[in-house]
Amino acid sequence: MEENVLNIALFQPEIPQNTGNIGRTCVLTNSKLHLIKPLGFNIDDKQVKRCGLDYWSQVNLELHENYEEMREKYKDANFYFITTHGDNYYTDVQFKEGDFIIFGRESSGLPDYIRESAPERCIRVPMVETTTRSLNLSNTVAIVAYEALKQMGFPHMK
Amino acid sequence: MEENVLNIALFQPEIPQNTGNIGRTCVLTNSKLHLIKPLGFNIDDKQVKRCGLDYWSQVNLELHENYEEMREKYKDANFYFITTHGDNYYTDVQFKEGDFIIFGRESSGLPDYIRESAPERCIRVPMVETTTRSLNLSNTVAIVAYEALKQMGFPHMK
Repeated sequence: MEENVLNIALFQPEIPQNTGNIGRTCVLTNSKLHLIKPLGFNIDDKQVKRCGLDYWSQVNLELHENYEEMREKYKDANFYFITTHGDNYYTDVQFKEGDFIIFGRESSGLPDYIRESAPERCIRVPMVETTTRSLNLSNTVAIVAYEALKQMGFPHMK
Repeated sequence: MEENVLNIALFQPEIPQNTGNIGRTCVLTNSKLHLIKPLGFNIDDKQVKRCGLDYWSQVNLELHENYEEMREKYKDANFYFITTHGDNYYTDVQFKEGDFIIFGRESSGLPDYIRESAPERCIRVPMVETTTRSLNLSNTVAIVAYEALKQMGFPHMK
């Protein structure tokens, strides 16, 4: 478990296909997946497994009752929060092994109280301004995770 | 049309949800989406629009009868091919505005004849070696597109 390079945390994810796809990305990048309850689906939903393909059983998965439990358990780790309200780009951060990257709900992102707990660690993925919507959640995870992995030299990958 | 920063081309995509998600990414990054026939779904499939959300109508979309037609029409452009057979990482390339990035089928990637037409332009996204499967197609597009956009300074994005 300590060998995981990154920690990807989803705050109250709503769409099982996204979580399935993100699990697949975690397996293929040696990342651990943290899910913060309540989830908008049953973790055994067949849609999760379908999108996670044959990877889902290999996901290093940890469920948390709430955000505070996760924060307390990993209090020595660096936490970064992906939000459209972030002042800095995700590419401005120097990621390190063991960092936590927290992603919000598909519909409403991260709640104010989490963002406001560490505004200097709120980062965003730039987009063309069109509507109030943004990138698909699993795509956002992939973009940020791969920037972090690139900075680390793609450990254990080829 | 000439204002598009990147050209994302999907060779014979099979899964409508992926194409819908990729269309969404294209709108949010000012990229043009090229689809090379035959497609594994009807372009009017409701799944495409559902995953493209309210973006689908805004996608700058061009359909091509086959790969050769697209290559001939854009013969002056740089083409890069994303494949697990690539010798170099996608992060080794210096992307420029107007570049084409070509992605293969979900099931089988790009055919040999396309890869072998320009082996020096075949690039890959590194992964942990597990099975023969790889990242979800829409995630792969997002990862490579954002590396290219980062190199260009995220034009027209904020």
